Parts: sequence; C-alpha cells; structure tokens
Amino acid sequence: MKAEALKQQAARPENPGRSDGGPGTTGSTALAGVSRRRLLGTAGAAGAAGLALGAAGGAAAHAAAAEAAPTALSTVGSGVVAFHGEHQAGITTAMQSSGHLVAFDLSPGAGRKAAAALMRRWSALAAELMAGRPASREDTGVALDAGPSSLTVTFGFGRTFFGRTGLTARRPAGLDPLPPFSADRLDPRRSDGDLWVQIGADDGLVAFHALRAIQKAAGDTARVRWQMNGFNRAPGATARPMTTRNLMGQIDGTNNPKPSEPDFDRRVFVPAGTEHGWLTGGSYAVVRRIRMLLDDWERLSTAKQEGVIGRRKSDGAPLTGGGESTPLALDELGPDGKPVVAANAHARISAPEQNGGAAMLRRPFSYHDGIGPDGTPDAGLLFICWQADPLRGFVPVQRKLDRGDALSPFLRHEASGLFVVPGGARQGEYVGQRLLES
Amino acid sequence: MKAEALKQQAARPENPGRSDGGPGTTGSTALAGVSRRRLLGTAGAAGAAGLALGAAGGAAAHAAAAEAAPTALSTVGSGVVAFHGEHQAGITTAMQSSGHLVAFDLSPGAGRKAAAALMRRWSALAAELMAGRPASREDTGVALDAGPSSLTVTFGFGRTFFGRTGLTARRPAGLDPLPPFSADRLDPRRSDGDLWVQIGADDGLVAFHALRAIQKAAGDTARVRWQMNGFNRAPGATARPMTTRNLMGQIDGTNNPKPSEPDFDRRVFVPAGTEHGWLTGGSYAVVRRIRMLLDDWERLSTAKQEGVIGRRKSDGAPLTGGGESTPLALDELGPDGKPVVAANAHARISAPEQNGGAAMLRRPFSYHDGIGPDGTPDAGLLFICWQADPLRGFVPVQRKLDRGDALSPFLRHEASGLFVVPGGARQGEYVGQRLLES
Repeated sequence: MKAEALKQQAARPENPGRSDGGPGTTGSTALAGVSRRRLLGTAGAAGAAGLALGAAGGAAAHAAAAEAAPTALSTVGSGVVAFHGEHQAGITTAMQSSGHLVAFDLSPGAGRKAAAALMRRWSALAAELMAGRPASREDTGVALDAGPSSLTVTFGFGRTFFGRTGLTARRPAGLDPLPPFSADRLDPRRSDGDLWVQIGADDGLVAFHALRAIQKAAGDTARVRWQMNGFNRAPGATARPMTTRNLMGQIDGTNNPKPSEPDFDRRVFVPAGTEHGWLTGGSYAVVRRIRMLLDDWERLSTAKQEGVIGRRKSDGAPLTGGGESTPLALDELGPDGKPVVAANAHARISAPEQNGGAAMLRRPFSYHDGIGPDGTPDAGLLFICWQADPLRGFVPVQRKLDRGDALSPFLRHEASGLFVVPGGARQGEYVGQRLLES
Repeated sequence: MKAEALKQQAARPENPGRSDGGPGTTGSTALAGVSRRRLLGTAGAAGAAGLALGAAGGAAAHAAAAEAAPTALSTVGSGVVAFHGEHQAGITTAMQSSGHLVAFDLSPGAGRKAAAALMRRWSALAAELMAGRPASREDTGVALDAGPSSLTVTFGFGRTFFGRTGLTARRPAGLDPLPPFSADRLDPRRSDGDLWVQIGADDGLVAFHALRAIQKAAGDTARVRWQMNGFNRAPGATARPMTTRNLMGQIDGTNNPKPSEPDFDRRVFVPAGTEHGWLTGGSYAVVRRIRMLLDDWERLSTAKQEGVIGRRKSDGAPLTGGGESTPLALDELGPDGKPVVAANAHARISAPEQNGGAAMLRRPFSYHDGIGPDGTPDAGLLFICWQADPLRGFVPVQRKLDRGDALSPFLRHEASGLFVVPGGARQGEYVGQRLLES
C-alpha cells in the first residue's frame, strides 16, 4: 500500500470556524510523506473524504463554515502541516488544542558552529515529527498511532543568541529590548532565552512527545531555560464558527489581521529588501505570560465586564451593536451623554484604527498551572503575537493599553520574551541556515 | 426549535476504540436537556447522524470499531453524558482528553448540614454543566459555544469527611488507610482530603470552566486542599482502535475489566446488601500521582523497556506473541531457558490471574507540570482506579508490584488519596443524599 499525495489548502478542514478572526491557514496540507504505518486505517475513503471537506484558507474557509455548521470531522490525528515553505509553520496555522513553549540557552562554549548543528538537527527532527514519523529508532513511542495531529514546531532566536554566536552584526533592530510597562511583574527566570521553540498539536501526547524529542535533541548544546504549557479549544468543540474564548470568557482575537487582507503578509512577515537578507519571510514573536486575576474579574457582573471590554460577552459584538466583526461605533453616545464604548474600554484602545494601523497576529494559548497557595488559579494567557516589526505591532498597542486600559487591573504580565523567527526552510535547508551559514 | 431526546448507548461514538481495554461506556448519552442555545448548529442532520454512529458500549463498540476504522467524527462538543443514574458518571465513561482533580477540606465549623447543602449545590451545578448549560446567570462564559464536550463531574468522600460530619458510624471499612509502600514518597499536602472531585471533558476550556464553577460553589463551606491537571489522547487522534498510551509510550490499560464481562459490576461497584445501605451502587477511587522518571526510562533501549514490561511497545502484545488482548504465556521459556516474560516483568506481576482475581478499573490521566529545576520533566500518571473494595483491587496488586516489579525503579508515588464515591443521584436527589440525610 503506497500513499498518494493529497495536497490542498487549509490545514484544519475539521473546523474552519476556528480561523474566523484568528489566524487563517495559508500553508498547504499534505498526506504526502506520511509513513505507511500512519496511513493504516486513515488513508481509506473515509479519511480522504474527511480531508476533502476543507475549503481554501482564510476568509473562504470562514465563509464556507458559516454556511455549513457543524462541520463533519475526520479523525483529528490525520491533520498534517507542512514543515518546509516560505514561512515557518505555527504562525498562520489554525490554533491547536495543546501547546508547549520552551526556551533554551546555549551551553558555555557552544558558538555559531554548534548552534548551526543544533538547528540542522532540530529542523530534521521537526520535519519527521510533523509528518507523523517517529523521532528515531529509539523513539519514546508516546505519539505512536496518534497521527501527526496537526503538529507544528516553530523556532526563534532571542537577542542574546546573536552575541553568543558571534553574529551581533547580523542582529536585527527588531530585537531591541521591549520597553518596560507598568503592568510588568516579570520573572527573569521565565523570560527571554537564546532559543525559543513553540510546539502545537491537536493531541496532548503528540505535543508532549515533540517537546521531549526537541529537548533531547538539544544534547549538550543547549539547556532548558523555561518551559510553559498551554491549551485551546478542542477541534470540533465549537459548534458554530467563531473566534475562540479566553479564560475570562471573552471572545479573543476578533481584530486579528486576516490572511485574505491585502496587507496581511506585509504586517506579519518581514519582506525582502530590509536590513538583513536572512530575515526575509521571517517574523517576530512577542511572548508574554499574562496572568488573569480571575477572582477579581469574576466579581464583576457580566454588564460591568462588557463595559470594561466594550463588547458583548455572548457573541463579541460591539456594545454599539451588530455582530462580532462589526466595527465599533466609537463616537456613539448613550442616554447619559457618555460614549457607549467607554474611553478606557479595551476594545477601543486596542482597535486598529486607534493605533495608526499597528497590527499583530495574536495566536495565544490559555494556561492553567493549578490553584495557587492563596486559592486563586494560576491561569491566564500565553500571549503570542506575530508581526513584521514589533515597533509597528506589539509595542505601540501595549503602550496605549498600559496608559489607560480598563482591563489592565485584571492582568499581570509575569514573563516576557521577544524572538526573531526566521523564514521557513526550503527542501534540503534547515531553519536559520541563511543566518548561520551565509 | 425544540430538541427531541436522542438516547443511545456509548457516550463516545466518535472513537469507540478508546474503550478497548479501557473503560467501556455503560451510561446513556442523551441530547435531552441541552438548551436551545447549545443546539443551534448541532441538532441538525449532521449532528444526529454523528451521534447515531455509536455502537453499544464495551466489547460491541470494540468489535464495531475494529471493522470500520477510522470512525467519522461529529463535533466533539455535542457529546453529552447523563448526570443522573445508578452510578456516577466519570467511572465507566470513556476517558476524556482534559481532566482536573481537586480535593477540598471542609471549613472549621462546617458539619453535616453544611456538607449536605454543599453536595446539593454541587449536584445541581454538575447536572447543569454536564447538559451544556451555564452555571448561573453570572456564568464566566468560558464554556459558551463549546457544547457539553462529554463533561463529567464525579464526587467522592475521604476518610476524614466522616469524622468532620459526625458520621463515623457510617464510615465504610473500605476507607481504612492504604498501607505504606516502599516506592511511596508522598506529599501530605497533595494527598487525601475530605472531599474529592474528578472533572473530565473533551475540551480544555469546558473542563476549566467546570473546575472554576465547582470551586466557587464551595463558598465558605470548603476550601481547596490540592488540585491537579491531566490529559489523555484527543478524541479522533488515534487512527486505529486501541488502548491509549502513557507518557512512557506503553499501551496502558489492556487488562482492565470490560463492561461486557459478567463480573464487571461486582468488581467495580458496591453491590446491595453490604455493611451500609447508602453505599449501594458506589465505588472506591484510589488516586495516585505517579511521577515517571522519564530520563532514566528513556535511557533503556526499546528491547530493554519491553523486557521490563513483558509486552511489545509497538502494539502491547505479550512478548510470548499474539495481539494486545492475547493472554501472557507465563510458562513459556526462551532459548536461554528463562521465562520469556521475566519473573519481575510488570505485566506478569500485575496480571489478574496472578492476583487471585483482584481487579480494578484503571482510568487515569497523564500529567505534565513542566520541566523541573533539574531539567527533567515533572510528568507521569494521575493514576485513578475504581473498585468495589480496595482490599480486592488496588491494595493486593500494589503490594505485589511493590515487592518485585521491574518497573518500580522508574516510578515515584508522590501523592495518594482514597475516596468512597457514592452511587449516582436519582432525579431530584443529590449525590451523597442517602448518606447525609437518612
């Protein structure tokens, strides 16, 4: 039995609604390269039919889903995201239900050569795992039988990586440290790092398996600096196509740039012709562990929460009416003569039209590390946003929020990282090769 | 639009393979009681067809799945498990992908009356949440739009509960403390507790939402003693019907009693006519946080790991041949004259025929709380097993394992709890009512 290549758009045919307002999927999905073992029981008519339900990515997927909810699901395990491509996977890929973030520091003495060898090893490993193949002959077996489960592995470099590898001259200005913000309560031991890896999958064991494999493949070259676990809604758990919710219960991600918009690529990915050629097709990830003070938040009535956000909790529509995607009527006044969407409402302050066009693609995981000694949940958002330039994305928006967002008293930024994420590897290439070898 | 009741066996039609060797589903699944909001987009032909794919629980489901993998999936969110019934949900329910365990201690001064009021509140809440309805008018909204997602909420009482409520005379002998074991490294702050709640769902936000709601409904009556998070394979992530794997990569749960076996009920549930009438239909849960020393384990070759277990890693078949469900040929000798399944192999020592018929229904979650300061994962198994009598289930098997299991050096029991889980509530009743009010 030999697998035939099945190529198509849309990595998440089973739930295109999740790309509504969230990241659309521009990468291609392929069953090509899935091993014979993986295909046993998945490549039959049912499997192919399931995958064939997918519409094209982005807005098209949204429109199709809006017409035909609920979407019939194929097996979650058979979803495959391509490793090779213009951009790395895990940026415009639809959000997965399980995620791990892990930062490494290079070991003393490990320089450019060792870093290049590590990126070569990691890239080869990521390509195998994302195709649903074992890491090695002595694979731990944790992901056996699960299928690729839309696994993505994404690699980034922190500011310190460039000094350690003697590449300071190639360090882009976009990695200049983020400014301090008044809500920051940053733990340096859980912030920054030479190397950053984002792992996402629609199965918890597949994601864990990849994390272990990546950690072991680091060998003596790099050691873990910090590691965090996150989650999102399960594929198929949302009946209607809509943007996902966060642990405050808010619909979160409505104003994300859409892959169908003409300036999407320009906002998210570094174009050719900027300061460093190796950066082309890359992006910047701002990572913040944002704790939600849920006990305080949940003491507010739903009406008060809606005032803080400026949107209805039920469906994410602006308080000035319409649906989730309706623009805010920022000038509309209520019977009391005050703006319906308050001056300090989160949605007003973070609205793209209020930020001179600054835009970032938010693609977070929720986190929950249990209940703390004070009885409150250690829970919130592993905020990850993607942009071509942090100074045109996260920084200006967060500066505005920092000055007057009504939501700020309910949030605490506990860790922070800024990483440059090189463009995707071409066939035969490893991630970061154009930086490390040219 | 009004929902018609859809009743059938098998709560997890989307992946009956997960009940192979694991817990079958004997409870009924119903869309009855799902609110109109929940049904928007789920009660159409596609949703009903998806649910109708389910076969009867246990062995029948296994057989059907073996013939027709992969199973087409409906939306994960529409799965409903009934709250009311002879037994509580979450015991024979197929394992869910997300779980929370939480133990509470009654507050000083809270006695039998306060405990009864709490169980009444919690039961009403669990019934609402499991049907996919909000917790209250001021619900946090975290689970909105997700559907019930096969949520279960299961309640148990620890030994100390009976003293605090003045009910020592009704404390069953099955709650006598577990004996110490040599592999125990128990943290008392994460062990035991007056009350225990197990939450499981096929969506991380639905499970988190239920945990928060249960915690808040405790009010001043009880406070959290400890809380743990776990996960299992996603529904639909396993292409072939088979028992799930643990974080060591082993197929785990092969020898579980099957609901189709004639002595299943007798082994798992307390029969009528024992020492306390209120116990009828109940069960005992032994809960152990078992850390896996994965770095040590993964240093073994696959062949050595298979020797430790006595089964093949690829498919769980005994080293003496056959398939996963083939009995071990315990007397078979290898070319070296030694037993093929070693005298200290885990599968031999834990085999039911080696334990005088002792049996327990294992229904665990994996856990992963990040990477510890020493660089090793804080990961393993939230072991939960169910039995009619711990002295005929967990205790004798663990005693034997404690004396000579080759797997023991790779495990560390870090927390332990033993809870009696009353029978299910009938309509109009709350869980534990027959203990607290009779």
